[in-house]
Amino acid sequence: MLAAVDLGGTSFRCALAEQDGSFLGEASEPTRSHEGPEAVLARIAECIAGLVTRAGESPSAIGVGIPGLVDRERGIARFLPNFPTRWRGVPVAEILGRLTGAEVRILNDVRMATLGELVFGLGRTARTMAFYALGTGVGGGIVIEGKLLLGPLGAAGEIGHHTIVPDGPLCGCGNRGCLETFASGPAITAEGVRLLLGGLAARLHEATGGDAGRVSPRVMADAARAGDEAVASALARVGSLLGIGIANVVTTIHPDLVVIGGGVAELGDLLLEPARAEVSARVGMLPPESVRIEKSLLGERCGLAGGVALAAGKL
Amino acid sequence: MLAAVDLGGTSFRCALAEQDGSFLGEASEPTRSHEGPEAVLARIAECIAGLVTRAGESPSAIGVGIPGLVDRERGIARFLPNFPTRWRGVPVAEILGRLTGAEVRILNDVRMATLGELVFGLGRTARTMAFYALGTGVGGGIVIEGKLLLGPLGAAGEIGHHTIVPDGPLCGCGNRGCLETFASGPAITAEGVRLLLGGLAARLHEATGGDAGRVSPRVMADAARAGDEAVASALARVGSLLGIGIANVVTTIHPDLVVIGGGVAELGDLLLEPARAEVSARVGMLPPESVRIEKSLLGERCGLAGGVALAAGKL
Repeated sequence: MLAAVDLGGTSFRCALAEQDGSFLGEASEPTRSHEGPEAVLARIAECIAGLVTRAGESPSAIGVGIPGLVDRERGIARFLPNFPTRWRGVPVAEILGRLTGAEVRILNDVRMATLGELVFGLGRTARTMAFYALGTGVGGGIVIEGKLLLGPLGAAGEIGHHTIVPDGPLCGCGNRGCLETFASGPAITAEGVRLLLGGLAARLHEATGGDAGRVSPRVMADAARAGDEAVASALARVGSLLGIGIANVVTTIHPDLVVIGGGVAELGDLLLEPARAEVSARVGMLPPESVRIEKSLLGERCGLAGGVALAAGKL
Repeated sequence: MLAAVDLGGTSFRCALAEQDGSFLGEASEPTRSHEGPEAVLARIAECIAGLVTRAGESPSAIGVGIPGLVDRERGIARFLPNFPTRWRGVPVAEILGRLTGAEVRILNDVRMATLGELVFGLGRTARTMAFYALGTGVGGGIVIEGKLLLGPLGAAGEIGHHTIVPDGPLCGCGNRGCLETFASGPAITAEGVRLLLGGLAARLHEATGGDAGRVSPRVMADAARAGDEAVASALARVGSLLGIGIANVVTTIHPDLVVIGGGVAELGDLLLEPARAEVSARVGMLPPESVRIEKSLLGERCGLAGGVALAAGKL
């Protein structure tokens, strides 16, 4: 029996699973990160214990995804940008191992999701893969010839922070014009708000009643599909900018598969079609069929699936 | 005994060397690519024979760098963009093997230079490395954890064709705003010509007598060092744009070493200092010391050194 934990700024998710990735139970709780690391990790251990009670077997190993920088070998969460400073240098593997009696392995959350897609998702048929998680931020992961690439600090694969437009908008990372400034959920929402408040998006106005607080990528996608050309054009632009990022990854490592995951990936072909067109236009030296660009097979469950793979020692 | 061949559009270079990379003889000849592949390969074989006569020993294996796409396993040059169409599908390994009696291994020329820098140059101390060859075009190569990354079509590492400015100048590859459109020798020269003809570069005017045909990256570097601020600023801009490309490679694979080779690398810190500054500014999430950015140790000899490594089976 294995367990997986996906720790996020607003909630954490736990699962029990077999070695083959089939889930036996799942649960989710708010993180309440103000509680401090020990309290949150104690609630994670309780959450797992609850799943164990129902499944009747304890996990021998737990894979934990951490939204930040980790020291994988020592099992320490080094820096979590969206958590209070008390989350600096937290020995997650030691604390959670003590509380659960299981061996605990940790990894950056998006690298863990990449591992999930690699081991249990579309990546099963890929040799070299790039994974994008489009959500509140844009994270990523790189697989080279079947192996997740981590780099000396676990920071390889930060392809959400490719510079796409050199003098573009300021990014949370300090750079300008990162892919994240165009293709994150908040960036897409902001563009929808601009169109709404500028009176440029009739369908979006109908759908939201003119309330900027109700704009989201999902609502924008519905408006675009209902014929809102301004919103469709805005989403196509996001797809094209994503395509520029993908094209640069393609010229670097020539992956046979690029997977788009995270909540924003639900926009599907509204983003993927323009992204594919942009890659074809920009990487003329390679046959387009040599790089598949697809939506994640596992969707929101990439992270937990990766946790199972991590627990199973498939890193 | 091993041999190396670096085939270029205007000349080819041959060398004999020991397993450890020490050169025992070198020769160069014009390519005369209009002659057709068989004639050129016959002259390469003769050139090697001349070196053998002086060294007193024949090579058991030859590594050959090809300026284009290759089918490495079958030893075939698939497409050489700067050669006549007769160079499509040329069985280089078979022809040269028959003429020399040696085992012949072929590789794209810039990937071979990357291998040279990896095995005999700065790369000896690196785990993950990106190599740029700044010349008539901008080529590249990627090393992941000690191994040259080729990809399914040998096209991984084309980091000269990263999009740096989405709507930038047209590139020979069909894309717009590739690094090559800013950082190749011709691109740098063209910017020098613009400054010269626009009356903006007094020192460059002195050095060339106002003759646009005498502008080159080297002459521009001299003018910049002699105090020509317009030329220095133009070269700094090239370095910054190179830095954007490097930053994108860093966020993708986090190399511990980036090596700048090719003739344009002779501009040294005029390019490298602004490139380093740009990478530091754009990749704030990583400590700058985690990525060294250096001029090639082997310089013009990277290619031949790589040919020796290739012949020695160090791919």
